[in-house]
Amino acid sequence: VTQTLAERTCWIAVDWGSTHLRVWAVNTNDQVIARDWSEQGLNNIQENGFERALLDLVEPWLDEGVVTKVVACGVVGARQGWCESAYQETPCHPLQDAQFTKVNCKDNRISVTIVAGVMQAHPVDIMRGEETQIAGFLSDQNDFNGVVCLPGTHAKWALIESHQLMHFTTFMTGELFDLLANHSVLKHTVAAQGWQPEAFARSLQQAYSEPSLVTAQLFSLRAGAIVDGLPAAEARARLSGLLIGLELKAAEGYWRDKEVVILGSSSLAKLYHQALIIIGVGARIVDNERLTVAGLSCAYSQLIQGKG
Amino acid sequence: VTQTLAERTCWIAVDWGSTHLRVWAVNTNDQVIARDWSEQGLNNIQENGFERALLDLVEPWLDEGVVTKVVACGVVGARQGWCESAYQETPCHPLQDAQFTKVNCKDNRISVTIVAGVMQAHPVDIMRGEETQIAGFLSDQNDFNGVVCLPGTHAKWALIESHQLMHFTTFMTGELFDLLANHSVLKHTVAAQGWQPEAFARSLQQAYSEPSLVTAQLFSLRAGAIVDGLPAAEARARLSGLLIGLELKAAEGYWRDKEVVILGSSSLAKLYHQALIIIGVGARIVDNERLTVAGLSCAYSQLIQGKG
Repeated sequence: VTQTLAERTCWIAVDWGSTHLRVWAVNTNDQVIARDWSEQGLNNIQENGFERALLDLVEPWLDEGVVTKVVACGVVGARQGWCESAYQETPCHPLQDAQFTKVNCKDNRISVTIVAGVMQAHPVDIMRGEETQIAGFLSDQNDFNGVVCLPGTHAKWALIESHQLMHFTTFMTGELFDLLANHSVLKHTVAAQGWQPEAFARSLQQAYSEPSLVTAQLFSLRAGAIVDGLPAAEARARLSGLLIGLELKAAEGYWRDKEVVILGSSSLAKLYHQALIIIGVGARIVDNERLTVAGLSCAYSQLIQGKG
Repeated sequence: VTQTLAERTCWIAVDWGSTHLRVWAVNTNDQVIARDWSEQGLNNIQENGFERALLDLVEPWLDEGVVTKVVACGVVGARQGWCESAYQETPCHPLQDAQFTKVNCKDNRISVTIVAGVMQAHPVDIMRGEETQIAGFLSDQNDFNGVVCLPGTHAKWALIESHQLMHFTTFMTGELFDLLANHSVLKHTVAAQGWQPEAFARSLQQAYSEPSLVTAQLFSLRAGAIVDGLPAAEARARLSGLLIGLELKAAEGYWRDKEVVILGSSSLAKLYHQALIIIGVGARIVDNERLTVAGLSCAYSQLIQGKG
């Protein structure tokens, strides 16, 4: 007898960020048997639209008369999200012994839990979603001591020791790139596509060696376009180099004398990898697609053992 | 016999920026006898709408059968403006021996001239409008040698020696503040009004002493609001302090061992004055309201002497 997808689905993993909602159907052997996504991230969703947006994706995996557990991470647990979930405080093992927050749903086929984010008191910082990727990474790297970097809209650097997230810092690099490239005077100057590796490397090193000059170098992209006809693809590479260079300088305390593990799968992750190599830092990329599900799987195990 | 305003108007001074159009009616004694403004700046104007926008303001100052000279500065002379005007190259005396660009108008009561902006080849930079304020400042400061700072959306620092604009640098500080306060994740965190002087001073000094950390300190405003209930007015003061602190660090080559003359009249000018005092730099403010007209007056003199 062939089981339906709904029958084979044991639980559902959810990564709910600012721009996207991603869902995975997981079977009893912790294998992903289906996946889907939508653009119903926190920025695009209507008030009270969370349950509907989730059901729009996971409905085919649900069975009438069966309650399927849904485990979610990301800004869905923020104050402006579906239901505010707790924060663990550093130092901590992300998702271990964490508080879980149960969401009230109208549909009785799902039971939704949001995992805790992580906060740091001094200097004050927060993460929601990245702690799950880190937990997933640590789940098969028992002996890892070192530094992870998670590139993105709000890039995170984190120090891991003895299976604990000791300390982390958030940089607004990705959001600054978007604001400057698309919403500032530079929008006429910076291409949406195209690249120039040498320009990226040069601007990276400039910002790294003289970080305070970055705000002036930003305007020089505009002036360069007008006076010297700076190509828009080169301007894009230079803008990226300046902002990542500034971040790498500020993150020096994390990567000094260490190898950096970049958790990512986007072209941005490859760019951070190149950037670290350019300034002489050892780095490797770990594909983060499976890390979120692995992290949520740790949370699910605790939930069914009654720890949630 | 009492003369009409139109009869008393000798020429018209125009400062046409990104957000505003400002006009002054000037008599034969170089005195301002009327002024007006609109929000028909370059960002808000329709294509081919320049002549109409100008006439909307200056029509009451025009006489039938008389051609009134109009002298304009600002981004109206940019490539995306009404008519592209030339750039003088540094080192130069702004508006002296500069090229003037005549605009073709349909209305024969006005003869419009746009003054040249200033460009710098290395590092590449441009200004349009600020050169006129600098020329106005120098017109009654014959012996000035020193540094001027013009706060704004794109703040300018300029070194003046022997009546020449030797060198200048543009910082995107004002635009970054606007983008971060109103269009980033910080928009929930940063108030539109309110202030906290101690927070401004502290953030200014942090950014000044460790400029690369600014991108991380930006996100800490968000985290601080969520975790510690950071008040939105304090967040506003801190954001401003971080960005101005970064600029002051980068502008150190300008102000080191010098008094800074701030050309401005806005609350932003007062803030730069405070900031310089906090880091121990001598500074004074020169009200820039009359400087633009004084600068355009130098240009007008050259025009009627046939140098245009």
